[in-house]
Amino acid sequence: MASTDAASRTAAPRTPPPLEGDAAALRAFLDGPHAAVRDQVRAQLVEHAPILDERVDLPRAELRRRVRDLVVDIGARGQSGHGFPPQYGGGGDIGASVAAFETLAYGDLSVLVKSGVQYGLFGGAVLQLGTARHHEAYLPDLVSGRLLGCFAMTETGHGSNVQALGTLARYDADTDEIVVTTPDDASRKDYIGNAADDGEMAVVFAQLEVGGEGHGVHAVLVPLRRDGEVLAGVRIEDCGAKLGLEGVDNGRIWFDEVRVPRGNLLDRFATIDDDGTYRSSIENPDRRFFTMLGTLVQGRVSVGGAALGASKVALEIAVRYALRRRQFEATTPGVEDLLLDYGMHQRRLLPLLARTYALSCAQEEVAGQLHQVFSAGTPDADERARRALESRAAGTKALLTWHATTTIQECREACGGAGYLAANRFSALKADTDVFTTFEGDNHVLLQLVAKGLLTDYSSEFEDLDQFGMVRFVTGLAVETVIERTAAHQLLERIRDVLPGGRDGWDQEAGLLDPDYQLAMLRYREEHQLAGVARRLKAGVAAGTAPGTVFSAVQDHVIAAARSHVERLVLEAFVARVRAQPEGPTRDTLAALCDLHALATIEADRGWFLEHGRLSAPRSKAITREVSTLLRRLRPVAAPLVEAFGIPPGVLGARDLVG
Amino acid sequence: MASTDAASRTAAPRTPPPLEGDAAALRAFLDGPHAAVRDQVRAQLVEHAPILDERVDLPRAELRRRVRDLVVDIGARGQSGHGFPPQYGGGGDIGASVAAFETLAYGDLSVLVKSGVQYGLFGGAVLQLGTARHHEAYLPDLVSGRLLGCFAMTETGHGSNVQALGTLARYDADTDEIVVTTPDDASRKDYIGNAADDGEMAVVFAQLEVGGEGHGVHAVLVPLRRDGEVLAGVRIEDCGAKLGLEGVDNGRIWFDEVRVPRGNLLDRFATIDDDGTYRSSIENPDRRFFTMLGTLVQGRVSVGGAALGASKVALEIAVRYALRRRQFEATTPGVEDLLLDYGMHQRRLLPLLARTYALSCAQEEVAGQLHQVFSAGTPDADERARRALESRAAGTKALLTWHATTTIQECREACGGAGYLAANRFSALKADTDVFTTFEGDNHVLLQLVAKGLLTDYSSEFEDLDQFGMVRFVTGLAVETVIERTAAHQLLERIRDVLPGGRDGWDQEAGLLDPDYQLAMLRYREEHQLAGVARRLKAGVAAGTAPGTVFSAVQDHVIAAARSHVERLVLEAFVARVRAQPEGPTRDTLAALCDLHALATIEADRGWFLEHGRLSAPRSKAITREVSTLLRRLRPVAAPLVEAFGIPPGVLGARDLVG
Repeated sequence: MASTDAASRTAAPRTPPPLEGDAAALRAFLDGPHAAVRDQVRAQLVEHAPILDERVDLPRAELRRRVRDLVVDIGARGQSGHGFPPQYGGGGDIGASVAAFETLAYGDLSVLVKSGVQYGLFGGAVLQLGTARHHEAYLPDLVSGRLLGCFAMTETGHGSNVQALGTLARYDADTDEIVVTTPDDASRKDYIGNAADDGEMAVVFAQLEVGGEGHGVHAVLVPLRRDGEVLAGVRIEDCGAKLGLEGVDNGRIWFDEVRVPRGNLLDRFATIDDDGTYRSSIENPDRRFFTMLGTLVQGRVSVGGAALGASKVALEIAVRYALRRRQFEATTPGVEDLLLDYGMHQRRLLPLLARTYALSCAQEEVAGQLHQVFSAGTPDADERARRALESRAAGTKALLTWHATTTIQECREACGGAGYLAANRFSALKADTDVFTTFEGDNHVLLQLVAKGLLTDYSSEFEDLDQFGMVRFVTGLAVETVIERTAAHQLLERIRDVLPGGRDGWDQEAGLLDPDYQLAMLRYREEHQLAGVARRLKAGVAAGTAPGTVFSAVQDHVIAAARSHVERLVLEAFVARVRAQPEGPTRDTLAALCDLHALATIEADRGWFLEHGRLSAPRSKAITREVSTLLRRLRPVAAPLVEAFGIPPGVLGARDLVG
Repeated sequence: MASTDAASRTAAPRTPPPLEGDAAALRAFLDGPHAAVRDQVRAQLVEHAPILDERVDLPRAELRRRVRDLVVDIGARGQSGHGFPPQYGGGGDIGASVAAFETLAYGDLSVLVKSGVQYGLFGGAVLQLGTARHHEAYLPDLVSGRLLGCFAMTETGHGSNVQALGTLARYDADTDEIVVTTPDDASRKDYIGNAADDGEMAVVFAQLEVGGEGHGVHAVLVPLRRDGEVLAGVRIEDCGAKLGLEGVDNGRIWFDEVRVPRGNLLDRFATIDDDGTYRSSIENPDRRFFTMLGTLVQGRVSVGGAALGASKVALEIAVRYALRRRQFEATTPGVEDLLLDYGMHQRRLLPLLARTYALSCAQEEVAGQLHQVFSAGTPDADERARRALESRAAGTKALLTWHATTTIQECREACGGAGYLAANRFSALKADTDVFTTFEGDNHVLLQLVAKGLLTDYSSEFEDLDQFGMVRFVTGLAVETVIERTAAHQLLERIRDVLPGGRDGWDQEAGLLDPDYQLAMLRYREEHQLAGVARRLKAGVAAGTAPGTVFSAVQDHVIAAARSHVERLVLEAFVARVRAQPEGPTRDTLAALCDLHALATIEADRGWFLEHGRLSAPRSKAITREVSTLLRRLRPVAAPLVEAFGIPPGVLGARDLVG
């Protein structure tokens, strides 16, 4: 009898109960611990909402002024300073500041980016690289928006390779000053936000020279303007029109022997003594450089959050449009069908929606780590945790910003020609977010950074590499260690064990919806790719090939491995947060969404899994079928799933599309 | 001895000779039969080049005037009329007009699109849907740019489903006039180019009613303005700012009982007699509608060409930048490497370059068919050829415009932040081309059209379906025929025979670079997917499921099959054109590029081929290795491959990037 029961259970078609969508509960899930801060920002966005319409027709100069006023207003209201210490007008809560920035991305993105430049990059550099006297002198005015400034790192000739930048900061012992100079045109500061119109001061990254000796890149405070007039020795040029972010005044800066007091060196990690001697708590110059840079990691986390917020705006518009717009009679004669009732339309939008939830969880995780590391005290406290955070922030930023580009594009197309009008928001979303994939670190370079961390296991002995670092790393011996750590046959055994059906059960239908199966698949891919990279690097070097050539040949494999790593972290974060939910209809809906994300991710790379024996052909096809089933299950809760983003109606805009 | 020879040949590492890149020969290949016309357009683009810089800072209203002047200038010079009959100032050469338009896309895209609206859509409608009296009355002024007009088809409430549009054209027998009315706001004409500022006349698509009887959608000439003043009964609203194409004056139009003479009906396919009787040479109203629409197919071919031209501009900038810009020391200490020497950078750009060549060949093929069909005489001459052309134009437009979106995005990212500045061209390319994927037919809808043609084999019995048509088709019996035609086991046999190694030789390395193997793979995928669609449709209907539901479930499969079909046509076109080249270094280079395109295409969908037993895991991996080998082989000829586009230097722009 028991076996008959089992057979009939197997034979019965699985008809899971319909999902329920409680927008408020889903919103609580997404808002996480900083719901109150997010609501504050939402209220402020409603007040600032007129900019979303005004921007369409304002000439650039006026738009910039409007945006500046809003950025200053944010500071004046005390909403800029969640991450600053309370004694300077801040809230002392880094997690809150990340949540606030992410929510601010529901609004105008020029306001967001200019705020980010002012309070995040400029403010963050003064806070993290400066010491008490800089904090006291500048933070109160900076946090309240009275002192506007720039973060002058990027140069025309040096984008991603910051260590190689050319601006000079020479200490002149005779006058006890630092002399800042742009030696050539390739070393002009470029694309610097706040520079063209508004910045009164800049944190300038330059090669510090003391007593004729170079000490690598350091940050120096250099005044740019007084009462709106550019100071002597400083030349500023407007970068002019851009694809988007037209409310941000990007500019180029040249310095011609500009003298600032020695005290303007932001000297948390290295200082020039009264007797003119250079002194640093960190001996190794590469390590010093990366320690300084590491303190600025919040910038990358913030860009990721901005990409997330913008993706949500695009998705809510496209989903609501698809729940309103009818096209062609498909089901009922005389009645055109809703777009979202078409299978292809579900395929286009719902996996992006699921991925947006997954990335929200991943971003929450990064924000939490950031909060922990930076609230924990000194930068030396746990260097490994810091490196892991930097890697995670870099990888998450890359995935989030590519996701925004893909999502906004797909949503625009899903709204047809109406999506092309400036009045309907996509125009702004597309144009403004486009640069996210390459600013605050080019995504490909960032993923290489992630790979380097994985290959070295964040061990400090490899911190002396430059930011790219892979090539010189190739010549190192540690590859052996990596191969041992990730030896493919061990992994295979380990991961097979968690798979339903055991060693020979790869083809069983059961288990596709088991998060442990899904995670094991992503973990297997990651570790297999990483071991493969290590082997190929090692083999290339052993064969006597030049390291640069070896690296170039392996580079796409390196980037694939890093991406797989971050994909695994994203799924882990989503699975963990769903598991932490109380049982009930909201968890069921989230679990289905998580399944969709996991299976769509595996499906997208099924070629790899098939090549590596981790999917049989029938199981691969079963995944595609299961994705389709999940799309149909999730279709009825699409509306609450986007309502849960909590984008205030007046801020969503796109009234032609969403009604 | 023979066998030893063979063995040693097998064992020897394949070291093909380095490729040579003769830019002039490659350009002749791309320019094809209309090189002289292309050169005329190039010369004109050089004269009009100042617009490329001016557009950056001109306010919208002025930019529109500048663009209008250039569009009128093109007409005044006689460069607009390649496709019009000689007696009206044209050149009578449709192939030339497609080549000219494609080349015009190297320049400002507002000029291109406004020209397309004026000479292509407005002019094409008068030419194709009108009769001699319309031609005589309007074409001379139209072709020379003295009469500016609109193509008023799209309505707010009806995008892709043209047959359902709401504007009414009622024949009033009492006054012998046609009364044009917008019955509701969903039926206002929307996004109409040339409408907001300049259009003096519009071809209005409306539901024709004669004697109280509806006859479906017809085109009527309606005057909009006289001496710049909008006429009574017409209301025009500006669509306002857009993401791009800001030089084109898109608008909305409402008609309030606007009366025009009966003769304003464009009556090539249907007329109203002197006695007020409706009469058409095509009995069936659906067939009549699709015949009319079919004559406008050149619009889609033109958009495809525009996407191709824009992709070339983006690729030339990105490749030249990658041959100039150095980043990080990878090979030689103290010398940073060129971007294009990084494996990942080659991976990002060169397959897109190969695909651009492939799509150029495919576009040339479509243009050739267009020329043949439209030069051949009456529309009834060979209806099957016309349907095949429409399908091919639709599918090629979809692939070309998606390719442009992908290519421009990748190239922008590959140029970093500098690519974001308006001065550097990507900004314009991205913003202006974004709408290509959804105008002149939404790409997804177009691919469904392609699939329908394939399933019915363009047989006339299915022409009575609406444009979407799939759903009602599902209920038809002809599915049997389709299944028979494409029965999978027959295909398998047929295609296996052409594969090197014969029946059991799927895994042999040999043959990856054999175009017949590559084509067999794409053909197999296409026919397998098509047969699968037919089977699923049939099974769904047989199971009693509502046709709409069946269709929705199969829709992504339908679109995949159509896409596979067009991919096969693209590769066929490239292979055929390479084979037609004389033996020599240029053919060798093109053959390597064709191999890269073919293998990258297979690689991109290797999941499918693995699932369906057409690739083994080792062979799939071998394809990826071969792609990498091809990238390294093609790297040294990257410069001549883009130089071959023949974009005049002053027109390329982006001086910060390309030097």
